[in-house]
Amino acid sequence: MEVVTTPAELRRRTAAWRRQGHRVGLVPTMGAIHAGHLSLCDRARAGCTRVVASIFINPLQFGTGEDLERYPRDPVADQERLRDAGVDCCFLPEPRAMYPRGFATRVSVERGTERWEGAVRPGHFAGVATVVAKLFVATGPCWAYFGDKDAQQAQMVARLAHDLDTGIRVVVCPTVREPDGLALSSRNRYLDPESRQAAPCLAQGLRAAVAAFAAGTRGAAALAEHVAAPVRDQPLAELEYAAIVHPRTFAPLRRADARSRALVAASIRGVRLLDTIILGAPAGL
Amino acid sequence: MEVVTTPAELRRRTAAWRRQGHRVGLVPTMGAIHAGHLSLCDRARAGCTRVVASIFINPLQFGTGEDLERYPRDPVADQERLRDAGVDCCFLPEPRAMYPRGFATRVSVERGTERWEGAVRPGHFAGVATVVAKLFVATGPCWAYFGDKDAQQAQMVARLAHDLDTGIRVVVCPTVREPDGLALSSRNRYLDPESRQAAPCLAQGLRAAVAAFAAGTRGAAALAEHVAAPVRDQPLAELEYAAIVHPRTFAPLRRADARSRALVAASIRGVRLLDTIILGAPAGL
Repeated sequence: MEVVTTPAELRRRTAAWRRQGHRVGLVPTMGAIHAGHLSLCDRARAGCTRVVASIFINPLQFGTGEDLERYPRDPVADQERLRDAGVDCCFLPEPRAMYPRGFATRVSVERGTERWEGAVRPGHFAGVATVVAKLFVATGPCWAYFGDKDAQQAQMVARLAHDLDTGIRVVVCPTVREPDGLALSSRNRYLDPESRQAAPCLAQGLRAAVAAFAAGTRGAAALAEHVAAPVRDQPLAELEYAAIVHPRTFAPLRRADARSRALVAASIRGVRLLDTIILGAPAGL
Repeated sequence: MEVVTTPAELRRRTAAWRRQGHRVGLVPTMGAIHAGHLSLCDRARAGCTRVVASIFINPLQFGTGEDLERYPRDPVADQERLRDAGVDCCFLPEPRAMYPRGFATRVSVERGTERWEGAVRPGHFAGVATVVAKLFVATGPCWAYFGDKDAQQAQMVARLAHDLDTGIRVVVCPTVREPDGLALSSRNRYLDPESRQAAPCLAQGLRAAVAAFAAGTRGAAALAEHVAAPVRDQPLAELEYAAIVHPRTFAPLRRADARSRALVAASIRGVRLLDTIILGAPAGL
């Protein structure tokens, strides 16, 4: 596995591969690689002949008071995991390589980002859009792989890829879960043992909403209440939002259909967790 | 000369050229092609082995009450001029091809754009940055050619090309002028005969400032007054701004040096004209 550290090197590397006829897959990560990331790498290996994974904790997408400083960093173990997953090139830039002195460009997506994560974390999505635009432009036309857990982000990224004429196909992959339903996330590392026990309440709420939908419930308020209840009942958890939304616009709905999405965000003793599911998803959770 | 009308076609065309080892040059225009545009095409032909010129009147960069509707449109004559200039591919998209339903992405450059054109035309630079980012991404790594007359725009575009890791080198080409000094601009077509007679007052102001600088004047206020005076003395002209600025940041200066830039904007009977010069430019105007 090759390691490159500047966008210019990455561009040259992928341009050479494209000239050789390769299809390049891109898996953007912030490191702290877990089985969810590895499932994206597997999908990329299945669909492409060369795979780039990036590890970059993007300061632009963290707000003041958020966890930029303590976000888990483990580049040596991360690189080993990516190598074992068959990644051909690891893009591992320093912040200065991504945002040199004088950097002044911002990319934003102005619809579908107003609510939920966009409302709770002002500036977050513009930070994500800016770094993803840079990764997309430097990697060039390819397939790019994102996790469904961050569904609002994945939808924004697909819009951006299309709007900026990148020629990149955004592939959204299913959330990987622990046996008790907890969605994998690098931030799960923050959970102390008690919080870890409490954390599956988000998935329990989604599972309850999927079951209620399967049983015929269509009113979004009732379904959202199914999502919220196990989180509210969990003393260590503080619910941020639970909602039934349109799968593309993320606008709240009155009545759900099989493609509607349930969203939930909560803090478990200060650790923010997200989860989401499509109500009519055949496998559920 | 090939004509393509969608970003996806443009991307395929230039990707094929790059695979063949060509260096691609891009000349973005809004049509109403004049000798200034053709000088950009000449530079592109000299530096590259394939030249793309785009013609797109970008609605995003026009404010309400501006001249989007009446902006000169002459696609047949434009294509002939570009063909004669040796352009290999004309990119001629409809607004719907550039901004399809649901388009929601914006690109902006947040420094160097606050003043002058950025202040007079709110949203203008974000509109330019968005369309240029699209053109850059669709055309791919190449050289891109812009006119020095729109110096603040050219500086922004160079910043954007660098910040987004496009691998594009932005080449800024000298302003082409009429024999009486008037900078070529598509908007010169709006000038009635009397306004046309009055219009060289902008270039006269710049020329006076260059002469004063050569004679030893360094105070920016005095130099700006040299720029402004011929415009103020012209009854058909209304001065918008005359300033001596830093050539990269466009911040106003107290003292000028040879690389400082003089800027002027004025309306001649309602037709907005811009002009600019580097004070120590050896050739002057």
